[in-house]
Amino acid sequence: MVRHLAIVGATGAVGREVCALITESQLRVGRVFLLASKRGAGERIRVFGEDVEVRELTESAFDGVDYAIFTAGAECSRKWVPFAVGVGTVVIDNSSAFRTDSDVPLIVPEINPGDIELHGGIVANPNCSTIILTVPVWPLCRTHPISRIAVSTYQAASGAGAAAMEELRSQTRDLLAGGSIEPGVFPHPIAFNLFSHDSPIGKDGYNAEERKMIDETRKIFHEPSLPITATCIRVPVLRAHSESINLTFERPITPDEVRAILSNAPGVEVVDDVDAGRFPMPVDATGRDSILVGRIRQDVSQPDNRGIELFVCGDQLRKGAALNAIQILKLLSH
Amino acid sequence: MVRHLAIVGATGAVGREVCALITESQLRVGRVFLLASKRGAGERIRVFGEDVEVRELTESAFDGVDYAIFTAGAECSRKWVPFAVGVGTVVIDNSSAFRTDSDVPLIVPEINPGDIELHGGIVANPNCSTIILTVPVWPLCRTHPISRIAVSTYQAASGAGAAAMEELRSQTRDLLAGGSIEPGVFPHPIAFNLFSHDSPIGKDGYNAEERKMIDETRKIFHEPSLPITATCIRVPVLRAHSESINLTFERPITPDEVRAILSNAPGVEVVDDVDAGRFPMPVDATGRDSILVGRIRQDVSQPDNRGIELFVCGDQLRKGAALNAIQILKLLSH
Repeated sequence: MVRHLAIVGATGAVGREVCALITESQLRVGRVFLLASKRGAGERIRVFGEDVEVRELTESAFDGVDYAIFTAGAECSRKWVPFAVGVGTVVIDNSSAFRTDSDVPLIVPEINPGDIELHGGIVANPNCSTIILTVPVWPLCRTHPISRIAVSTYQAASGAGAAAMEELRSQTRDLLAGGSIEPGVFPHPIAFNLFSHDSPIGKDGYNAEERKMIDETRKIFHEPSLPITATCIRVPVLRAHSESINLTFERPITPDEVRAILSNAPGVEVVDDVDAGRFPMPVDATGRDSILVGRIRQDVSQPDNRGIELFVCGDQLRKGAALNAIQILKLLSH
Repeated sequence: MVRHLAIVGATGAVGREVCALITESQLRVGRVFLLASKRGAGERIRVFGEDVEVRELTESAFDGVDYAIFTAGAECSRKWVPFAVGVGTVVIDNSSAFRTDSDVPLIVPEINPGDIELHGGIVANPNCSTIILTVPVWPLCRTHPISRIAVSTYQAASGAGAAAMEELRSQTRDLLAGGSIEPGVFPHPIAFNLFSHDSPIGKDGYNAEERKMIDETRKIFHEPSLPITATCIRVPVLRAHSESINLTFERPITPDEVRAILSNAPGVEVVDDVDAGRFPMPVDATGRDSILVGRIRQDVSQPDNRGIELFVCGDQLRKGAALNAIQILKLLSH
């Protein structure tokens, strides 16, 4: 029993997905409050079979609210999460605002559910790319220690929100009609194009998205110095992220061992049918809870059979965001 | 002076690009013969300012032809290249048919022009993804020996030909209009989707495209056991390929050293402006001769500053195919 729940940013891409998934879930919730900026207020969104009116996020919005899922971005979270916690609400924060704080657990329920005990009012939901990376890699780590992760992403427009998905559609439509392109949400054309993730770049040359994947994976795995590198690329796909993952293990491991481990891993589905040419694709991952894993093979460039290549796809809005947040809510309310 | 030149597969995506680029080039050519299958015969394509009629490829087509550029795929090359060589034509073959034959030089003119001396009538043009990988990596290897290459590709529809580019356009148009998708050239939906390269998969789990990148890079670099791995992915981009390249060097190397070397490397343009957020993109690489290189940074996952990350884009039809073939033609005719 969750009692009263607020969803902050209910009109956004992730917020809407939370509304849909919470309805599908087996959770028993008291009242659901949908909150958004002034602009989003007034809209009605269906939750648990009822059309709930979205209200403006104000200081009184958390009165009597036991849990809140924040999905409105880091700026909103930095402003409102401390306030919500101050009035006794336990917050599941989908933004990057508090993820690396030492007193904020960063949870992927399939990996480190026990960390949730340490929370002081805030539980952070990892970045979508981190979740999609860690869910299939963790079960391998448990039996075969990993000495390095190198990942290249193929990230969908949904990661930048509903307006970005619409920009991909409308820009593509304009281009096909022979029109010119006017970037809006993204700084570069997204129609039939791709580009390095447009988050700020640090002194070490990594952008913020890559830095999140590195820092968050280390925190979730409890391996603060795990060697890991990432290259994050935005591609003209609507809503599932893909990742090309190269792993180095401390000891030899075979593709068959990987396949056996992943076939029994929670939150993972092996899609690796060489005869049928069937491997993970964004269109197949869309609307699915599991991370699809395929192209499992021995990396021929690494000695002693210690390298493994994987290609994975996961629904950025579901397991990459809304579903993971709801799984955290379940952990909290048990 | 090239004397008489035939372009086989003139009506295909690469063939048309050869016709355009040979006109732009400084090459003096005698007669140009455009050849294609029966279906393509009769069309007229502009070369050196004249509309040249495409003729059907027959046994008499190579009479008096000094050089031929084959761009019609491996099946056509296997059938016709030996015949053309038999009647005295020197062939530049853009297909994979003969690339790994020990007596066929595989040439990237910026890298191994000297190998061309060894030809016995056939010079092979590498796979597009291989060219786009090797042009920027080679200048680094020359001063800083490389001990491993790991690459993930983002390959445009153009790599599968003109019909594939049209399929990307028409499928996307249908999807945006709310219609359903009917894969044709590609076995999977390409509109707003991506998938593992659909070439056959070998016993080691690598597909043929990945195997080409591995084998061809080793041959071009004269390093038959170079540790290299590749993951090849098709993305909904029209005509420039991108690659996320992870390098391991035998000794330390800094991003500044990489930038300095690549700034003076032939066929390469460094596009790595952190302040302006400007990095290589397919739309910028399209129609360009150079391979664009950016996101140059120290790989934080590798010890002793021996790792470098790069992100590159190159026009698949130009440097990835037609331009490289014309550069080979220049080498041959000098």
